[in-house]
Amino acid sequence: MSIPSQSPIHYGYASASDMTWSRSEKVIARQAFDAALKRELHELMQEAKEIADRIKQPSDLWDLQEYLSRRRKEIDHTYNYRYSHLTQVFGRLLYETRLSEQELRGFSEDKLTTIRSLAKFLAEEDAA
Amino acid sequence: MSIPSQSPIHYGYASASDMTWSRSEKVIARQAFDAALKRELHELMQEAKEIADRIKQPSDLWDLQEYLSRRRKEIDHTYNYRYSHLTQVFGRLLYETRLSEQELRGFSEDKLTTIRSLAKFLAEEDAA
Repeated sequence: MSIPSQSPIHYGYASASDMTWSRSEKVIARQAFDAALKRELHELMQEAKEIADRIKQPSDLWDLQEYLSRRRKEIDHTYNYRYSHLTQVFGRLLYETRLSEQELRGFSEDKLTTIRSLAKFLAEEDAA
Repeated sequence: MSIPSQSPIHYGYASASDMTWSRSEKVIARQAFDAALKRELHELMQEAKEIADRIKQPSDLWDLQEYLSRRRKEIDHTYNYRYSHLTQVFGRLLYETRLSEQELRGFSEDKLTTIRSLAKFLAEEDAA
């Protein structure tokens, strides 16, 4: 007896793992991803300099150490360049205003819908 | 049949756990310990500012994060204020020139001998 293959569950929009990425979309994705990561790292570099500059006592030193460790984990977690995760990554980056929709121009409409939906979901969750 | 109690093994000098600390030795120990820790933390604060100031690229940022995490662990490990550990702590600090023998003046001769022996042992181990 053959086991029927399971259909993916859809909630009104395509799930990330169903998506295929055209060659041109991959180029756009890579550029947008790298640009957002570069901006975030540059922002953090500037922040680290400012925090270090304000160190007055040992607890400030450990605050910096903890802050950098936490931010490193967050960045490692956010910037996951796997095609099965990319719409989630862009949804989050859009919500965090770390990239603009402009940078995603050229993606298929279903990808943009998924990305916008996730950004909206995160915004609503944050407001709740 | 009673089990004979085990004698501590001595290598020519008193073991740390055998030592008792007089009231005046405790005062000296606390002052020397706090002074060395304060100096080490101030040195690290200065270093962190200088390293942060030189950050040019993301890898420099993670180098700072790793350096601070490592130094925090080392400092937590070194500065262990338990009387059973204090001669080891002072032996290490003496070896690392983080405190001077002058600051330990007032300790009993057996404590000073133990502390100097450990500092010498660490120096020899480092040179090997």
